[in-house]
Amino acid sequence: MAERQRYGKVIGVREEKIEEYLELHREVWPEVESMIKQCNMENFNIFIRKLPDGNHYLFMYFEYTGDDIAADEAKMVADPKTQEWWTHCEPCQKPLEDRADGEWWANMEPAYFLA
Amino acid sequence: MAERQRYGKVIGVREEKIEEYLELHREVWPEVESMIKQCNMENFNIFIRKLPDGNHYLFMYFEYTGDDIAADEAKMVADPKTQEWWTHCEPCQKPLEDRADGEWWANMEPAYFLA
Repeated sequence: MAERQRYGKVIGVREEKIEEYLELHREVWPEVESMIKQCNMENFNIFIRKLPDGNHYLFMYFEYTGDDIAADEAKMVADPKTQEWWTHCEPCQKPLEDRADGEWWANMEPAYFLA
Repeated sequence: MAERQRYGKVIGVREEKIEEYLELHREVWPEVESMIKQCNMENFNIFIRKLPDGNHYLFMYFEYTGDDIAADEAKMVADPKTQEWWTHCEPCQKPLEDRADGEWWANMEPAYFLA
């Protein structure tokens, strides 16, 4: 069994779209949730908070239980229903300008973990 | 058994103290880790990322498995070794000005969860 890996990610959210984003996430489409599970992602959390620059940000935490996250992410990107879901989510989001190539949500560096 | 509750928190970190904070967290004192466990906190993660305002922030995710987090937090606050640990950590941190009364790390609102 692959070791469980922990990921933290961050993205901005457009102030005028916060309610729309939260409403979308009160009932995420079953096909999207099924794809998250098929891609070996578990314990998937999103939090929101206003930060000192006056903007709200979204923080994602999840655990990856597979052995090839690049392949699983590619599988998710290729899923038509997930693509359609993202056409609703992405207009609500403001990705960080200094995110890495290929990122939408920006990866955060782990600083500490205690089981 | 109490239901597992998920918490996300955020705090700033002083730019000149980032390395010191990361170094501290490469070897957290055993008594501090023991107290986290005694206070029914599990799967405890801290991530770090620079945000668009140019400052770095720390993001905490943990799960609470007890049935009275206020009592468990009070127990942690009362622990002398944890208090001593915090005298090292707190000078590295810049708490959010709009945090709630009694908070150091500011609580984030949950927006989504998938097991």
